[in-house]
Amino acid sequence: PGRLHAATHEEIRRGATTDVYFVKTYEVLRHLGALNTPVTADVFANRAGILCGVEEALNLLRGLPVAVWAVDEGQPVEAGQVVMRIQGPYGAFGLYETALLGMLASATGWATAARRIKEVAGDTPVICFGARHVHPAVAPVMERAAIVGGMDGASCILGARLAGRDPSGTLPHAVMLIAGDTLTVAHAADRVFPPQEQRVVLVDTFQDEAVEAVRIAAALGQRLAAVRLDTPSERGGVTPGLVREVKARLAQAGFGHVKVFVSGGITPERIPPLKEAGADAFGVGSYVAAAPPVDMTMDLKEVAGRPVAKRGRIPGAAPDPRLRRRL
Amino acid sequence: PGRLHAATHEEIRRGATTDVYFVKTYEVLRHLGALNTPVTADVFANRAGILCGVEEALNLLRGLPVAVWAVDEGQPVEAGQVVMRIQGPYGAFGLYETALLGMLASATGWATAARRIKEVAGDTPVICFGARHVHPAVAPVMERAAIVGGMDGASCILGARLAGRDPSGTLPHAVMLIAGDTLTVAHAADRVFPPQEQRVVLVDTFQDEAVEAVRIAAALGQRLAAVRLDTPSERGGVTPGLVREVKARLAQAGFGHVKVFVSGGITPERIPPLKEAGADAFGVGSYVAAAPPVDMTMDLKEVAGRPVAKRGRIPGAAPDPRLRRRL
Amino acid sequence: PGRLHAATHEEIRRGATTDVYFVKTYEVLRHLGALNTPVTADVFANRAGILCGVEEALNLLRGLPVAVWAVDEGQPVEAGQVVMRIQGPYGAFGLYETALLGMLASATGWATAARRIKEVAGDTPVICFGARHVHPAVAPVMERAAIVGGMDGASCILGARLAGRDPSGTLPHAVMLIAGDTLTVAHAADRVFPPQEQRVVLVDTFQDEAVEAVRIAAALGQRLAAVRLDTPSERGGVTPGLVREVKARLAQAGFGHVKVFVSGGITPERIPPLKEAGADAFGVGSYVAAAPPVDMTMDLKEVAGRPVAKRGRIPGAAPDPRLRRRL
Amino acid sequence: PGRLHAATHEEIRRGATTDVYFVKTYEVLRHLGALNTPVTADVFANRAGILCGVEEALNLLRGLPVAVWAVDEGQPVEAGQVVMRIQGPYGAFGLYETALLGMLASATGWATAARRIKEVAGDTPVICFGARHVHPAVAPVMERAAIVGGMDGASCILGARLAGRDPSGTLPHAVMLIAGDTLTVAHAADRVFPPQEQRVVLVDTFQDEAVEAVRIAAALGQRLAAVRLDTPSERGGVTPGLVREVKARLAQAGFGHVKVFVSGGITPERIPPLKEAGADAFGVGSYVAAAPPVDMTMDLKEVAGRPVAKRGRIPGAAPDPRLRRRL
Amino acid sequence: PGRLHAATHEEIRRGATTDVYFVKTYEVLRHLGALNTPVTADVFANRAGILCGVEEALNLLRGLPVAVWAVDEGQPVEAGQVVMRIQGPYGAFGLYETALLGMLASATGWATAARRIKEVAGDTPVICFGARHVHPAVAPVMERAAIVGGMDGASCILGARLAGRDPSGTLPHAVMLIAGDTLTVAHAADRVFPPQEQRVVLVDTFQDEAVEAVRIAAALGQRLAAVRLDTPSERGGVTPGLVREVKARLAQAGFGHVKVFVSGGITPERIPPLKEAGADAFGVGSYVAAAPPVDMTMDLKEVAGRPVAKRGRIPGAAPDPRLRRRL
Amino acid sequence: PGRLHAATHEEIRRGATTDVYFVKTYEVLRHLGALNTPVTADVFANRAGILCGVEEALNLLRGLPVAVWAVDEGQPVEAGQVVMRIQGPYGAFGLYETALLGMLASATGWATAARRIKEVAGDTPVICFGARHVHPAVAPVMERAAIVGGMDGASCILGARLAGRDPSGTLPHAVMLIAGDTLTVAHAADRVFPPQEQRVVLVDTFQDEAVEAVRIAAALGQRLAAVRLDTPSERGGVTPGLVREVKARLAQAGFGHVKVFVSGGITPERIPPLKEAGADAFGVGSYVAAAPPVDMTMDLKEVAGRPVAKRGRIPGAAPDPRLRRRL
Ligand SMILES: [Zn+2]
Ligand SMILES: [Zn+2]
Ligand SMILES: [Zn+2]
Ligand SMILES: [Zn+2]
Ligand SMILES: [Zn+2]
Ligand SMILES: [Zn+2]
Ligand SMILES: [Zn+2]
Ligand SMILES: [Zn+2]
Ligand SMILES: [Zn+2]
Ligand SMILES: [Zn+2]
Ligand SMILES: [Zn+2]
Ligand SMILES: [Zn+2]
Repeated sequence: PGRLHAATHEEIRRGATTDVYFVKTYEVLRHLGALNTPVTADVFANRAGILCGVEEALNLLRGLPVAVWAVDEGQPVEAGQVVMRIQGPYGAFGLYETALLGMLASATGWATAARRIKEVAGDTPVICFGARHVHPAVAPVMERAAIVGGMDGASCILGARLAGRDPSGTLPHAVMLIAGDTLTVAHAADRVFPPQEQRVVLVDTFQDEAVEAVRIAAALGQRLAAVRLDTPSERGGVTPGLVREVKARLAQAGFGHVKVFVSGGITPERIPPLKEAGADAFGVGSYVAAAPPVDMTMDLKEVAGRPVAKRGRIPGAAPDPRLRRRL
Repeated sequence: PGRLHAATHEEIRRGATTDVYFVKTYEVLRHLGALNTPVTADVFANRAGILCGVEEALNLLRGLPVAVWAVDEGQPVEAGQVVMRIQGPYGAFGLYETALLGMLASATGWATAARRIKEVAGDTPVICFGARHVHPAVAPVMERAAIVGGMDGASCILGARLAGRDPSGTLPHAVMLIAGDTLTVAHAADRVFPPQEQRVVLVDTFQDEAVEAVRIAAALGQRLAAVRLDTPSERGGVTPGLVREVKARLAQAGFGHVKVFVSGGITPERIPPLKEAGADAFGVGSYVAAAPPVDMTMDLKEVAGRPVAKRGRIPGAAPDPRLRRRL
Repeated sequence: PGRLHAATHEEIRRGATTDVYFVKTYEVLRHLGALNTPVTADVFANRAGILCGVEEALNLLRGLPVAVWAVDEGQPVEAGQVVMRIQGPYGAFGLYETALLGMLASATGWATAARRIKEVAGDTPVICFGARHVHPAVAPVMERAAIVGGMDGASCILGARLAGRDPSGTLPHAVMLIAGDTLTVAHAADRVFPPQEQRVVLVDTFQDEAVEAVRIAAALGQRLAAVRLDTPSERGGVTPGLVREVKARLAQAGFGHVKVFVSGGITPERIPPLKEAGADAFGVGSYVAAAPPVDMTMDLKEVAGRPVAKRGRIPGAAPDPRLRRRL
Repeated sequence: PGRLHAATHEEIRRGATTDVYFVKTYEVLRHLGALNTPVTADVFANRAGILCGVEEALNLLRGLPVAVWAVDEGQPVEAGQVVMRIQGPYGAFGLYETALLGMLASATGWATAARRIKEVAGDTPVICFGARHVHPAVAPVMERAAIVGGMDGASCILGARLAGRDPSGTLPHAVMLIAGDTLTVAHAADRVFPPQEQRVVLVDTFQDEAVEAVRIAAALGQRLAAVRLDTPSERGGVTPGLVREVKARLAQAGFGHVKVFVSGGITPERIPPLKEAGADAFGVGSYVAAAPPVDMTMDLKEVAGRPVAKRGRIPGAAPDPRLRRRL
Repeated sequence: PGRLHAATHEEIRRGATTDVYFVKTYEVLRHLGALNTPVTADVFANRAGILCGVEEALNLLRGLPVAVWAVDEGQPVEAGQVVMRIQGPYGAFGLYETALLGMLASATGWATAARRIKEVAGDTPVICFGARHVHPAVAPVMERAAIVGGMDGASCILGARLAGRDPSGTLPHAVMLIAGDTLTVAHAADRVFPPQEQRVVLVDTFQDEAVEAVRIAAALGQRLAAVRLDTPSERGGVTPGLVREVKARLAQAGFGHVKVFVSGGITPERIPPLKEAGADAFGVGSYVAAAPPVDMTMDLKEVAGRPVAKRGRIPGAAPDPRLRRRL
Repeated sequence: PGRLHAATHEEIRRGATTDVYFVKTYEVLRHLGALNTPVTADVFANRAGILCGVEEALNLLRGLPVAVWAVDEGQPVEAGQVVMRIQGPYGAFGLYETALLGMLASATGWATAARRIKEVAGDTPVICFGARHVHPAVAPVMERAAIVGGMDGASCILGARLAGRDPSGTLPHAVMLIAGDTLTVAHAADRVFPPQEQRVVLVDTFQDEAVEAVRIAAALGQRLAAVRLDTPSERGGVTPGLVREVKARLAQAGFGHVKVFVSGGITPERIPPLKEAGADAFGVGSYVAAAPPVDMTMDLKEVAGRPVAKRGRIPGAAPDPRLRRRL
C-alpha cells in the first residue's frame, strides 16, 4: 500500500515538516559564520487560551543543547504572553520552529475549547468524541488536549492512554443495523462485556427513543447503566423535551436508575438546557475537534547577549515568573 | 526523549487511533456470528466543499478485502453527497471508520479553504505558509490539500513533495536579526543561492519597508526578484497603500522589475484590494490551516444485501455516477 | 348554565356590541336636530391585504335605508383604499360602525394570512386547522375567510359550510391514546368510514413516524390514502428530512401511493423546504388564526351634500371604479 | 337579511364550530366500544400569559358529567403550565375541545396584552377602545378580558356589562363633522348629558388641538372634565410635546382643572413619555385587540386510570396546587 | 463692544489663523537657508465630494509668486484626487496651508451635501436656510457653496450675493407672534411688498395649517403665491399627509394655484415622499450646514526639482488633465 | 486680489449675514407700527451639549437697548434648556437672530466634542489641531471653543490667544521633506528655538518611527522633550503597539525621558488604548473640527408683556436660575 500522508515521528525529528526557508536560513548563516550564535527565542500566544502541547514540544527538544522554560500545561495564558523560552545556539533548534509552533498552536486550540465545554457542564461528565473530525495522526494529540483542558474522558484509544485514562465509548449505529434490532445487540453486549463495564445502549437507531429506552430497560433491568441519545438532525436532534420525557417514562416504568447520555452536535450553548432537562453525561465531538488553533509566534529577543526584536516588537527577553525551567 | 503524541503510521494501521467502541463492536458482532456480514457503507459530507484525502484513505484501505468507489480529489461536493462507498465484510474495515472519516474531513476542510483563496487570487500565485499553525504530523497533509485545492506552492518540505512540487519560501526574520542587517543577509543569500533560485528578500525587519526595499534593490540590482512584505499588526499590517508605494518607489529608483510578495494574516477579503494595489504573490497561512474540517459521516446502507438505514436516513445505496471504482 | 360571553346575532343587530359613545352621539344629534343628516361614510384599510367580511357586513346593513358600495371579497386592497362606502341618514347606520369595522378588520386579517400561505404552497392543498386558536363564535368567520383568501379547505364544520365546502380533517391523538394503538384505530376507521372518504392516519402518537407509517400501510394497503405527520416540537417538529425519509421508506416497502400530510406550526417560511422534500398537503392553524386584524377606519366624507373631513384627511368622497354598488 | 357568519350560542353548544375530526372520532370510538372510556385531559398554555376565558369555558361544560379543575382567571401562568383539567368519559366532552381551547386562547391573549398596558400605565386609567378591531361577536369577550387583565374600563356596552362595569367613551369625530363645529357639540352634550356624567370633548377634528381645547374650556368652564386628543398620524399623532403644551395653555388660561385623555395607536412603549408629559388617561385599542392568542393544547394524560401521553409529552396527570376544583 | 472671535480678512491674510508650527517652520528653514526652496505642493481630498472653495483660495493666493492649477468648482472629485497644485518658493505660500485647506474642506463639505439634496429634489426648487446653524463669518461661504453644489437659492443676504443671486426667504414666526394673527401679517406684507415679489405666508404659527392656509388664501386670492409649512416636531413635523391635505383643501376651496413650500429638518430621505405628496419647494437648513468638511491634505511632491514624498505617499507630481492653470 | 468670501466683522454687525426675511420682517412690522414692540426671546438648545459662544454673542449685542441673561460658557446644557434670554424692543435685535444662533450653535458643537475628548483623555494633555478642517475665519472660534470645552491647547495662533493661551505645535512634514533629513531639522530647531521651548520632533517622515526616534534622541539627548507620531493610514496609522514599542526602544537606549505625542485621526474610541500603551499627549483635529453644530432655536415667549408661543411651544418665559444677567 502507498504511504500515509502524515509525517512519521522520524520525519518530524529530522525536520522534514519544517518550512523550507529554515534550510535556506542555515546555508546563509553558515556562510556568515553565524549559525551558532547564541540566541533567546520567545514563543507567545496570539490570543488567550488554555495552554497545551508543552510536553510534546519538550519531547522534541530534549537532548538538544538548549535551555527551555515554559508555562505549565492546562494554565490559562493571555494574548501576547510568553509561553515558552528557548536559549541556545540558533543552529541547534531553529529547524524546529515550525514543528514547535504547530504542536503548541493546535493542542492549545483544542484544550481551550474543551475548557469552555467543561465550564458550562460543571460536574456533569463530558467525553470527547472528536476523533472522527481530525486526521488520525493527531487524534491522540487532540483527545489528550481535551483532557488537559478538563474533559472527563475520550473515546480514542491512544488519546485516552496518553492522558492516562481508559478510553470510553458506546456501541455505534452500525452494530445495530447489522444485528437488525437494538435488543439483540443489548443482550449480546450484556453477555460479552466484563461485569465491571457499564452497559450503555444507543436507542435511536430504529424506533422512537422513549419506546426503545423502556424496552431495553425492561430487558436488562438493573444492569442497564444508561441509554445514549444521538438523534440525527433530520429527526430534530436531541431536545431538552426528549431528555425530560425519556427520563420520565423510564422512571414511570420503574427504571429510574437508568441515566441518559447525550451526543450529537453538542455546543456550550446547548449544554445548560439539556442539563436542566436531566442529561447525565455528554459526548462532544465537533465543537472541540474543529476548534481553531491558538496561533503561536516565535521571536528572537536576544542575539549574542544583546536585546533585539523585529519592528513591531519590544526587544529583550523580560523575566516572567510564570515560566518554569524544564530543560 | 519521550515519545511524540502523534500517532505513527503503524498505530493508525493497527487501529490505535480508532474510537474504543469499535473494539466493543467487534466483540459483540463476533458473539452474534455477524462480524463478517457483507455491508455497504456510504461516506457523505455534512457541508459543501472541495474533496480531499481520498488518496490517503485508499492507501489505508488498500489490501483489505473490500471494493471501494470514490469521487475524485479536487472535485466540489455538496452537503449530503456520497463521497466514498465501501463494500465488503464489516469486520474487514469497520475498525477504520474513525481514521477514514478524519482523513477525509480534515483534508477536505483545508482544500475547501484553499480553493476559496485561489478563486479570489486568480492568476496571482498563492503559497501555503500554514505549517506552523497545525501539528507537524499533519502539516504535509494540510499542505498537500492546499495544493489539491488549487494553491500554487507550499513551504513545508514534505507537504510540497507529496504534492509533487518543490517547496518554496523566503528567509525569515530570525536570520535578519542574527545578522543584524537585511543587506548583510541579502548579500550572503545572493552568494550561496544557486543561480536559478529566485532572490526574494524580506524587508520589514528593521526599517521602513519602502526604504529597505530600495536599498536592497540598489545592492542586488537585476538579481533581486522580489521583496517580501510581512509587516506586523503593531505596524498596521500590509496595507494596499504600502504595496502601491513600495512598487512606485522601486520603479522611480529604476527597479521596476522587482516584484512584491505579501504575507501576514491574508484572507479572501484582503486579497482583492492588495492585488489591485499591485501585489504579485501571496503567502497564506492561518486562513487555510485553521479552516474547520468538513465533517463526514459513514452510514451502513446495505446489510447482507438488504437496504437499511438508521432513523433519519434513507435506506439503500443509490447508484451515483460521480463515484468511480478505485479498489 | 351561565351565558356564553360571545354576543348573539340579536345583540349584534341591536347594537349591544357597539361602543357606548354612539349612544351618546345619538342623543346629541337628536338634540341638534341633526340625527338624520344625509352623510357619506367611507371605510378604508390601514394597511394592504386581501379584503374579506364584506358579505357579512352587507347582511348586517341589508334592510336599512342606505346605499352601499364595496370592493369584492378576495380582492387585494392597498393601504388607504376605500373598501366600502355607505350613503344615507347617519342615524340609520351610525350605530353599526364598530360592528362593521370589526367584521371587516378581522376577516380581512385572516384572508390576508391565508393568501400568503396559498402563494407559497402553490398547487399543494392547504387546509385550515385554526379553529382551536380563536373563540368558537368567530371560528366559522375565520375558516370562511381562510377559504376566501385561497385555502383549499377547513376543518371547522360551520366554517366550511359557510364557504360552501365539506369540512375536512383527520383523527386526532386523543383517539389513538384511548385505543392504545394506531393500528387499532386505523382498522376501525377503515371499517366505519364510507368508501368514498379518504383514509388518512396520524402516525406520530406512539412510535417513530417512519416505522408506524410502513406498519399502517402494510395493514391498509391501497386503501390508505395518506399518513399525517404532526410531530411535536419536543421531537423536533416535522423536518424536511423526516418527510423525505417517510416517503422513501413507504416507497421502498411498496407503498409509493401513500401521500404525506404535514401539520404543526406551519408558516410560509417552512412550506417551501417541506414541499421540496415531498409533502403532499398541509394543515395550517396558528399562522392564519393568530393573524392580526387589518384595521379599518370609517370617515364621514360628505355631510348634507358638502365634502368634509376631519383634520388629516382629504374632504369629499372621490369616485372609485373598484367600488361596486351592493345595496 | 342573510345570516351573520358568527356562530350562535346554540351552534357552539351543539358542536357546530368543532373540528370535523371529532365527529369521526366519535364514530371510531363507538365502533371500538370505547367512547365512554374515562379519561383525564389537561389543557396547558404554550407560552406565558394572564389566564382568562375560564368562566366562559365552565359555562360551556356546566351540566356535563365531568369534574373540572382550573387556575383562577387573572392569574399569571407559565409556558407548559396546566390551566384546566377535565375528568370524565371522553364522549361527554371531547366534542368541545376546539371550542374550549379557542375560548381560553383568545381571552388569555387579550388579558395578557391588557396586563402589559396596565403595568406601564400604573395609576393612570386605561380604557379599552378595541371593539372596532375585532368581530362584534367576540368584542364583549375581548373587553371583558381586558378588564380581567387589569384595564379600568371598556367602551363596548356588552363587554363592560359582562365585567360588571359601566361602559365609558367620548363623542366621536362623526358627530363633530355633522354638527360642523366642536363647540356646538360641546354645548349640546353639556345640555343633554346627565349632571353626574363627565363632559369629555374630542378637540382635534377641525382645529389645532391647543386652540380648540382652550376655546371649549372657555365655554364650559368648570363643567369641562377633560379634552380628548386623538390626533391622526398624518398630523404626527399625539406627541408628548402636544400633551405638555395643551396642559400648559389650559393652565395659563385658567383651566388647570381640565384633564387630557389620549388615544390613537397607544402601545406600552408610548405610555411612559406621554404620562410624564401629563396625560391623565389613555384609550387603548389595537394593541390589546390585535394581541395574538396564547395557544392552548389539550392532552389526554390518563385513559381508564392509566397514565398515557403521546410521544413528546410526559404521561400522567401530576397534582398541581394551582388547580382549583370548579365543577 | 468686545471684538468678535472670527478672524478678519486682514488676520487671515497675515497668517494669524495659521497653525503656529508654520512660524517655527520659517525660522528653521531660514536657519538652513532653505526657505525659498522651489517646491510643488499637491492638495488632495480625503473622501469623494463636490469641489468648492477654489475661488476663495485663489483670492488668497493671488499676487504671490506662485503658479497654481486647480480643478473647477462644482466638479465631483474622488478620494485621493489632486484638487489644487501650487508651485513656487515654499516661503511664499507655506504660511497659507492651514487657511487654504480649511477653505477647501469646509466649502467642499457644504457643496457635497447640497448636491445630494439637489439630486433627490430634481426640478423642485431647494433654498438654503442654513445660515443660523453656522457662524455668521462663514454663513456666506456656506450659502455660496450650497449654490455651487446645485441648490436654487439662499436666504443669507451676503451668501446669495456672492453666488450672484437675490436672497430669498419668507416671514418668520416672530412677526406672526408680534402681530398676533397670521392674517394681519399677510395683509401688511401684501401692502408693503413690491408687486413683483411673491407673497409666501407661513401658516403654522397659531392654527391648524390647513385651516390657516385656506383662510389666508381667501384673503389674498390670486396674489397668494404659496404657503409655507414649518410645523415643529412637537406637532409631528411636516408629514406627506399634511402636504397632501393642505393642497387638497386649497384646491377644493378654489385656490389650486397656491403652492406649498416645506421646511424644517429636511433631509434627502424625507424629500421623495414629500415631493410625491405635492410639495412645490423646500427650505433646507441643518442637513447642508452641519455637513462635515471634506478633509484636504497638502503634500510636498517635489523639492528643488526632485520628486519626494513622506512615507505612505508616492513621490512626484503626476500630470493630471483635470487640473487647469489658474494663476 | 478678489475678496474673501467670509463676512467681515462690519458685515456681521450691519446684518449682511442675516437671513433676508428679517429685512422683510422689519418692513412689515414698521407698516403695522409694531417694530418696537417689547418682547422676550428665548434661545434654547435642540440637543444636549457644552455651551459656548456666549461671550462672542454678548459682544455682538453689547450697546443695544436690550437686557440679556445667559448660562455660563463651559456649562453642560440639556436639550430644550434656555441658554440665553433677550428682552427689549424687537426692532433692536431681531436682525441678529441668525448671527446669534450661528455663533452659539457652532461654538457649542465644537466645545461639546472637545469635552468628550477631554473626558476620555483625563490628565493626558490634548491639543487642538483642527484649524485645517474649518474655514480660517472661524478657526479661532473653533480653537477657543475647544479650550472652553476642556482641551489643553491649540495650534492656531489667534485661537489660542483668544483663549488666553500660547499656541502650541510641532514642525510639520513639509520642513522635513525640504531639508531631506529629520536629523538636519532637529539640529536646526534645537539651534533656533529659545531655551524654554520644548523640542518635539516628528519622526515618521522618512523612516520607521522607532528607528528615527532613537536616532533623534541620540543626537539631542536630554534636550529632546518628545517625539511626535503621525503615521499615515497607508502605514496603518499610530497603533498602541507602535507607541509601546517606541517608548520601550527609547528607554532601552537610555532615553526614557522622551515623551510620545500622538496625532492623526484621533477619536474618543482610540484614546484609551493609546493612553494605556503609554501615549503622553494627543493632537486632535478632525474629531473636534468636524463636530456638527448644536442647533439653537430662538422663540418669542412674551410680546408686549403677554406670554405667547407658536404652536408646539409653551407660552411665557419661565424663570430659570441657571440664567445669569449679563447685559
Ligand atoms: Zn451513528
Ligand atoms: Zn462528531
Ligand atoms: Zn517573521
Ligand atoms: Zn501564519
Ligand atoms: Zn395532537
Ligand atoms: Zn394549531
Ligand atoms: Zn375618529
Ligand atoms: Zn383603534
Ligand atoms: Zn420659526
Ligand atoms: Zn434650521
Ligand atoms: Zn503631515
Ligand atoms: Zn486633521
